Amino acid sequence: MSGVIVTNPPKADRADVEALAEHGVATVHEALGRTGLLDSRLRPVQQGVRVAGTAVTALCWPGDNLMIHAAVEQCGEGDILVVATTSPCTDGLFGELFATALQRRGVRGLVTGTGVRDTAELREMGFPVWSAAVSAQGTVKATGGSVNVPVVVGGRSIHPGDVILADDDGVMCVPRARSAEAVSAAAARTAKEEATRAAFTEGQLGLDRYGLRETLARLGVRYRTHEEYVRDGAGS
Amino acid sequence: MSGVIVTNPPKADRADVEALAEHGVATVHEALGRTGLLDSRLRPVQQGVRVAGTAVTALCWPGDNLMIHAAVEQCGEGDILVVATTSPCTDGLFGELFATALQRRGVRGLVTGTGVRDTAELREMGFPVWSAAVSAQGTVKATGGSVNVPVVVGGRSIHPGDVILADDDGVMCVPRARSAEAVSAAAARTAKEEATRAAFTEGQLGLDRYGLRETLARLGVRYRTHEEYVRDGAGS
Amino acid sequence: MSGVIVTNPPKADRADVEALAEHGVATVHEALGRTGLLDSRLRPVQQGVRVAGTAVTALCWPGDNLMIHAAVEQCGEGDILVVATTSPCTDGLFGELFATALQRRGVRGLVTGTGVRDTAELREMGFPVWSAAVSAQGTVKATGGSVNVPVVVGGRSIHPGDVILADDDGVMCVPRARSAEAVSAAAARTAKEEATRAAFTEGQLGLDRYGLRETLARLGVRYRTHEEYVRDGAGS
Amino acid sequence: MSGVIVTNPPKADRADVEALAEHGVATVHEALGRTGLLDSRLRPVQQGVRVAGTAVTALCWPGDNLMIHAAVEQCGEGDILVVATTSPCTDGLFGELFATALQRRGVRGLVTGTGVRDTAELREMGFPVWSAAVSAQGTVKATGGSVNVPVVVGGRSIHPGDVILADDDGVMCVPRARSAEAVSAAAARTAKEEATRAAFTEGQLGLDRYGLRETLARLGVRYRTHEEYVRDGAGS
Amino acid sequence: MSGVIVTNPPKADRADVEALAEHGVATVHEALGRTGLLDSRLRPVQQGVRVAGTAVTALCWPGDNLMIHAAVEQCGEGDILVVATTSPCTDGLFGELFATALQRRGVRGLVTGTGVRDTAELREMGFPVWSAAVSAQGTVKATGGSVNVPVVVGGRSIHPGDVILADDDGVMCVPRARSAEAVSAAAARTAKEEATRAAFTEGQLGLDRYGLRETLARLGVRYRTHEEYVRDGAGS
Amino acid sequence: MSGVIVTNPPKADRADVEALAEHGVATVHEALGRTGLLDSRLRPVQQGVRVAGTAVTALCWPGDNLMIHAAVEQCGEGDILVVATTSPCTDGLFGELFATALQRRGVRGLVTGTGVRDTAELREMGFPVWSAAVSAQGTVKATGGSVNVPVVVGGRSIHPGDVILADDDGVMCVPRARSAEAVSAAAARTAKEEATRAAFTEGQLGLDRYGLRETLARLGVRYRTHEEYVRDGAGS
Repeated sequence: MSGVIVTNPPKADRADVEALAEHGVATVHEALGRTGLLDSRLRPVQQGVRVAGTAVTALCWPGDNLMIHAAVEQCGEGDILVVATTSPCTDGLFGELFATALQRRGVRGLVTGTGVRDTAELREMGFPVWSAAVSAQGTVKATGGSVNVPVVVGGRSIHPGDVILADDDGVMCVPRARSAEAVSAAAARTAKEEATRAAFTEGQLGLDRYGLRETLARLGVRYRTHEEYVRDGAGS
Repeated sequence: MSGVIVTNPPKADRADVEALAEHGVATVHEALGRTGLLDSRLRPVQQGVRVAGTAVTALCWPGDNLMIHAAVEQCGEGDILVVATTSPCTDGLFGELFATALQRRGVRGLVTGTGVRDTAELREMGFPVWSAAVSAQGTVKATGGSVNVPVVVGGRSIHPGDVILADDDGVMCVPRARSAEAVSAAAARTAKEEATRAAFTEGQLGLDRYGLRETLARLGVRYRTHEEYVRDGAGS
Repeated sequence: MSGVIVTNPPKADRADVEALAEHGVATVHEALGRTGLLDSRLRPVQQGVRVAGTAVTALCWPGDNLMIHAAVEQCGEGDILVVATTSPCTDGLFGELFATALQRRGVRGLVTGTGVRDTAELREMGFPVWSAAVSAQGTVKATGGSVNVPVVVGGRSIHPGDVILADDDGVMCVPRARSAEAVSAAAARTAKEEATRAAFTEGQLGLDRYGLRETLARLGVRYRTHEEYVRDGAGS
Repeated sequence: MSGVIVTNPPKADRADVEALAEHGVATVHEALGRTGLLDSRLRPVQQGVRVAGTAVTALCWPGDNLMIHAAVEQCGEGDILVVATTSPCTDGLFGELFATALQRRGVRGLVTGTGVRDTAELREMGFPVWSAAVSAQGTVKATGGSVNVPVVVGGRSIHPGDVILADDDGVMCVPRARSAEAVSAAAARTAKEEATRAAFTEGQLGLDRYGLRETLARLGVRYRTHEEYVRDGAGS
Repeated sequence: MSGVIVTNPPKADRADVEALAEHGVATVHEALGRTGLLDSRLRPVQQGVRVAGTAVTALCWPGDNLMIHAAVEQCGEGDILVVATTSPCTDGLFGELFATALQRRGVRGLVTGTGVRDTAELREMGFPVWSAAVSAQGTVKATGGSVNVPVVVGGRSIHPGDVILADDDGVMCVPRARSAEAVSAAAARTAKEEATRAAFTEGQLGLDRYGLRETLARLGVRYRTHEEYVRDGAGS
Repeated sequence: MSGVIVTNPPKADRADVEALAEHGVATVHEALGRTGLLDSRLRPVQQGVRVAGTAVTALCWPGDNLMIHAAVEQCGEGDILVVATTSPCTDGLFGELFATALQRRGVRGLVTGTGVRDTAELREMGFPVWSAAVSAQGTVKATGGSVNVPVVVGGRSIHPGDVILADDDGVMCVPRARSAEAVSAAAARTAKEEATRAAFTEGQLGLDRYGLRETLARLGVRYRTHEEYVRDGAGS
């Protein structure tokens, strides 16, 4: 699983990718049965940006960005570069020069389980990045790794060609084979959320909208006035 | 202490709450003898907002937001919703739909020891949130809990009806019974800080203003020139 | 090493400090052979600011800012205050009043391994701060410490008079004796980066620019088409 | 809430304390409706010890153990000392000398949200300790605090006189007013666990014993052979 | 990928599993090209135990161990149960009663990204466990999940039927399809380590055994006496 | 500061090293004015061992143990190897083979800010280790670094030739120039602790022994009976 650069992985359907970009991460994550989310330590370096693209993966040695150089060549229009390391690493493996190279190739962003640097420049040039850290720590180019093999980033398995969707809430991965399902489920979910939003705006309660009063009763949750509660001796 | 929804807890005096909103968290925390602060892992998802309100509390199971639905109904004008879980949880238990429902009821914000999602939307709609994480991870509605019982969030005990004050520095809790004391102490503290600010602007030193030269002498802190220090063999 | 206020430490050459301020932390860190960086837990409370200055150091007891008061008197035009504690501490040892005093003395910023407070006010007044936490937690003035002795902040040894350089990527320390070397190396590095940026903008790859195809071959990294890779049975 | 030493707090019934010591933390926590547990960062410095006692609380400033000295005098036969700090602190506020003084007074152990030191000696002398860290870092005696006021340790509110129960699994607090209820619920729980253990030893499944096959069916969890699962296209 | 209990996944060759149990995790991890290791936060609750077995996986909701009950039925002789949750969870999802049921079925141990409880009892009964936390926190049985689907634990993708190898150093996963390769590579590695151990015992240096003097020279690492180093002005 | 192997650094006086080994880390740390302690994340992999020795330092790239090989040659009788990396790293850079080589040379132990592996074997062979993690993760030998330059481990600056003292409480560094002072101060401290232990065994209180009743009074800490405290309205 190491030491290989895989050159032409199949990618998720382009139209599906574009369609998913119209929904937020939280919505698509729900639409897929609450699967696919990377953990919350991956944060955007910018605010207010949402992107979707197809994953090109790089697996690097900690403190070493050699394989990102190899990965750039495998990246093209509509891709998002996804970087993992073989063990935890907060170094700034990625910065403005890489972003320059990727932006020229039509790459839409970076997701990395490591650190990044040149964050002021990245914001200025509009190249969006989600990372586990910000660090100016530089790296070497001394140890081999792989490109376009399956990697785990943020506790989530990502295959090349999967759809990566990222916004202010974080990053998720839609498996390539499920992109069409995700599009239709996300559309349905968005419609449902809009209806709920309208209902809530008019004052309906979730308790009623979702039938939760029955759930509470079934679970034995009781209503007590403050006076009853104090009299019961609870809340001490 | 679980499985109860308490319906009419007494609340801190409304005028006190409004008065406290005119002071920052750091000031009121000092004014109350350096008590009441929630720990620094709770961070705002927005910048430059300060709110004060009365606590409505929800105690949820990890990964489950059922009791937030029950809590919404207990929330009203001037409240702040405070969410705890029975064990650590970074999931996004709260998002834009809840905020829509709360905003309509006049609720001023959310403080949660868990994660939140839809952060871009929350910023847009101007509903302020302080949380321990940002995560799109969705939740179920399967397990009971409580509303308006005492909870611990950020290492601090919070009772329903207490005053919650939050700004860019974090979140604090003023016990309901101490709200009047907090108002007058905060006003005094603010006045004192203004005088100090003026003095510092004109060049006075804290060493002189607070009589700290005597403290340093009493503690045996000595002044040494760099030459003396090097000659002493220290600083190696 | 404790209980001493050292009064006139030698400082890095002023012209070197100004020259370093024209380069980012990532660049100077690379220029110095990838040394000098403080760890990535130190983050700015503002965005888009870069400063350089000479270090005045304060070593405090946790929960106690007495020695910051002593340090203010030792600070002057062009300095940056650097605060360490004898053991881990996230309290807000520093806030707006200190910043007022320091700003009047021409101090350029604060770097601290602890927390800070009044962050909204610090942003408003334009006093830049890099810290390990934001916390309103107040402190006492009860225990002695030192000023202008060597300290460790963010895993890095800092001597009074060293150059501190900080921006959105983090904080670094250039030892006083190496400031001239850092200036010329940073200038060379910046020139090199500009040439690389131009080349990348025109489509050159790092693989070619840095001769990395040979490195990959020497390390035994092989290119495989997706079909070959699947046929090999890898990637499972 | 600070600067007070409270001298004669009511304590949980002694017989209840002894009875609780016969059950593990996990059992009593379940028996009390899954409440009362301190968070999992508090770990024992020894292995294989279980103690129960009544809480004497000390609230210290970080890096300062003055109030532990004051608390020792308030401790007696059957107590457990519980130490909190006003903000996070890993220093070794407690060591062998304190343990010597407490052991003589019949105190059964220490629970602290800070660090401890002299751990080899503590194990030798048989004084059990649960702490958030081990650290040789010494402290001062310079700042006031309180004894026998309510504190929060490990995310749990503890009042003086509450029952503290600790073993290899961690630490829990049984509120004083609930000690009798805890004793009978724990006995019932232990009996139930013994029956379950016997059933499991003979090969019964939890699915059957707890009627969970119906739960799985109601929740829509389906059984699939591996062949069906692969044919469905899942598990990629 | 959720809501499925897969009943007859193929498993790694039994003889390979037994053969792997004769090598340590560190050795097999090296033998497989430094792949397969779970992250270092998973720690054993006992000391001095090594086990190998085939993975049965359970994917649970945080705070909910329903699917472990379902997984028990799928476990048999020579298996190791592997538990993941959909988001981070330190609760004690597993304890002595589960261990009793599993031990009867011939299961060799547990690996979990969550917490466990009853650790004293687990050590006594000799059921080995590797977990991310120890916590008495109990759980509910309210939300569905899956058994024998691929999961990520400790940053590593694990499929049912893979070989799990665990000892005092941590846990690793050998993909089912690579078990035979792992056995022969581990044997070769062990032989090589034995030769190196013998050579080191007799005083040979790694510098000579691995030809690293050339590597150091190629990388420009220079030897300097202390006097030369001081004269160069370095080491300040 | 990188790329240098320094060959004959001066070392602390051998007799001082042996004398320090008779005192615990907590005692010597106090004796030196509470300085020199490495942070509490460095933990022993064994229990009940105390060692003292002179530091040989290695500065490695993350994920790379090349410089440990170079360091072994610089190690001799009575030394302790101290390993730092240029950025955070939990990999197992050190294991049983290195320990074999070091043990033959009379080296007394290892202190590392990284991870270690083969911990069962290290315990068996009696080679003591203090590390920030345990991890089987292997490393490469591809990037240069330094030996016997000053390093920072656990937030503490360590120079080659300094005394390293380590036990169950953690690790400390006594600067070479202060070893004699440390010996006499530690002896005095130990004598004082023995007297205090005797006094505490006989029932004297720290409040009286250290004159702390005056301190409490000066700080305004008041004694209140529980009845007075409740009547005051505090403790809510």
